[in-house]
Amino acid sequence: MSRSVEERRRGILDVLKREGEQNVRELSERLGVSSVTLRRDVETLAARGLLHRTHGTVRPVQTAGRAGAVEKYVLGMVIPAGDYYYERVIEGAKAAAAAAGCSLVLGISGYDKATELQQVDRLLAKGVDGLVIAPTPEFDSGQLDAEQQQWLVSLSVPVVLIERPVASGGAAGVLDSISSSHAVGATLAVHHLAELGHTRIACVAITGPNSTHVLAGYRSAVASLGIESLGTVRFSADHEETVRDRILELVEAGATAFLVHNDVLALRCLAWLDDAGVDVPARVSLISYDDVFAAVAAVPITAVAPWREAVGQQAVQRLVGRIGEAISVRGRGGPGSAAEHRELIPRLHVRQSTAAPAKLDRHLGEGTADAVP
Amino acid sequence: MSRSVEERRRGILDVLKREGEQNVRELSERLGVSSVTLRRDVETLAARGLLHRTHGTVRPVQTAGRAGAVEKYVLGMVIPAGDYYYERVIEGAKAAAAAAGCSLVLGISGYDKATELQQVDRLLAKGVDGLVIAPTPEFDSGQLDAEQQQWLVSLSVPVVLIERPVASGGAAGVLDSISSSHAVGATLAVHHLAELGHTRIACVAITGPNSTHVLAGYRSAVASLGIESLGTVRFSADHEETVRDRILELVEAGATAFLVHNDVLALRCLAWLDDAGVDVPARVSLISYDDVFAAVAAVPITAVAPWREAVGQQAVQRLVGRIGEAISVRGRGGPGSAAEHRELIPRLHVRQSTAAPAKLDRHLGEGTADAVP
Repeated sequence: MSRSVEERRRGILDVLKREGEQNVRELSERLGVSSVTLRRDVETLAARGLLHRTHGTVRPVQTAGRAGAVEKYVLGMVIPAGDYYYERVIEGAKAAAAAAGCSLVLGISGYDKATELQQVDRLLAKGVDGLVIAPTPEFDSGQLDAEQQQWLVSLSVPVVLIERPVASGGAAGVLDSISSSHAVGATLAVHHLAELGHTRIACVAITGPNSTHVLAGYRSAVASLGIESLGTVRFSADHEETVRDRILELVEAGATAFLVHNDVLALRCLAWLDDAGVDVPARVSLISYDDVFAAVAAVPITAVAPWREAVGQQAVQRLVGRIGEAISVRGRGGPGSAAEHRELIPRLHVRQSTAAPAKLDRHLGEGTADAVP
Repeated sequence: MSRSVEERRRGILDVLKREGEQNVRELSERLGVSSVTLRRDVETLAARGLLHRTHGTVRPVQTAGRAGAVEKYVLGMVIPAGDYYYERVIEGAKAAAAAAGCSLVLGISGYDKATELQQVDRLLAKGVDGLVIAPTPEFDSGQLDAEQQQWLVSLSVPVVLIERPVASGGAAGVLDSISSSHAVGATLAVHHLAELGHTRIACVAITGPNSTHVLAGYRSAVASLGIESLGTVRFSADHEETVRDRILELVEAGATAFLVHNDVLALRCLAWLDDAGVDVPARVSLISYDDVFAAVAAVPITAVAPWREAVGQQAVQRLVGRIGEAISVRGRGGPGSAAEHRELIPRLHVRQSTAAPAKLDRHLGEGTADAVP
């Protein structure tokens, strides 16, 4: 769907909102679009429940006076950031909300728990009917703490968690959640490297809530395939040069491939390797994680791609269903449907940064490197 | 839906299958049902794609000559057993297959890997279009081994796993799976006991592929709530009396509640406690796991109830979608949709076997009991 089509349709809705019922022929002249195009737009918008049409006229749904017709629900969405990873999660959520005739109100927590609380309070005060939220987890474990879980289950509206799988044991395990399985994503990357013939690899990761899952998947895959991991390196902006040196040491020690979480760090690695005269992929293969802009790197980088739009889309669909259930069956233990934890398995997009390992003549270092820091 | 309605509808389909096109009025007289009832049945069956209707007549879909009308796909299903837990999983799968106009062919592995291979080969030889399978896992870990995972991903038809979550690292992590989260199920039970005021509890479990998950959930919940676990007991038919004695020792040591996996074992525990004069729930609370027949115990037992029908139903729906995708987009890496791991969160059905703990006057044993065996 091109942007201009959606803009044209938004224009139609704006006119209806401002001025009420319109004659279709007059509207087509006024907006400067052909009547065929306008009729097709009107059909689409009517199918989405965004306007009503009768013979020759269209009117906004708000004035229809039928309950539940449109602006069906107001949905709140609270995420840590609106850019990078979450930009397409938001796109998916917006599309699903529009398709369900709901509006979406966004709050950004900036990975800060106090801000998160404020954002949720603000949305609840605005009267949202339900909430999609990626709560701020502990950075080390990737998990939500006990207090936060208790808070989430005590909220007065249906809640769907995104990108935050809740480990068993915690109170929030009863909530619906939709997440990317970063552990399986990392597994895919390691299997790809093993299929190419790599037997000595390493992992470099940022310090963030998802890194724990990526590293866990990396370690499980290495163990299950019986190949050698030369170590895992955690990036921190405080010791950037140490990390660069560590990566070059691993190459010297015989690492032929790296899995790098995330795209930003992978681009840095690519530059460091290039500066040091280490060719990608002739000498070292590189796989990135997230696939936000891996495709446009100097050497297009093979990347694990979580289904970011689908996460946003499915979370909103689930939430709309839950709100409907909450309205029709008040109280706990009613019929309803099963709460579920859904993990979407990322894809692997193979590009130029991965190849079979070079057969090196020279003696390779034997020691297994330890993790840094 | 009452059984008789479905039987009546099956009767209609049987006549059409044997004798071809029928006049609706004649058919209603012949089957001895009112024409209103018959017309309603015909509408339902037509909506399900199981017959065609025109003015006053109905005809079987098989003679319609339109491809893809009915017996849309043949689905294979391989599970360890057809009774107890899986009986309702099968019911859910059958209902979903019927609704999708597909037929379902069942194979039972009896928790034996060689039999499982044979059953799958047999189904593939019969030309099934896809497979729902609960593969036989390692009993200790509840996990599928590497060879088995490789076999599953190499099958020539789409595969959906049920009740077997694949840990990250393994090759089968890329397959769709739909499972009950037994770890979160156990968590629910522990939270319920904690809310009633229990602070010293224990867990008794059979030795089976799901027990690992139940025990993991039990341990996480106890740790997260900061209450005391007096121990976990693994049941084996070989030392049944040892297990009984161990449970009574735990009661003496001050355990006020037990989570018991599964229903069969919970009924045994109830009898052992009754024989020893330990009142349920006055002295000890009991929660069962599975909820197959916990409701009809001498003291109706509070139980964790996995959504067994929903697992079967959703697996078939997912498989039908996958077969459709495989037909429309051949080859890997095509558009398709995200593979997903879906975990359905069980419910807790509260009955008479759980109550607040009695305030005991006497001195309680202080030592924390160790696990047996």
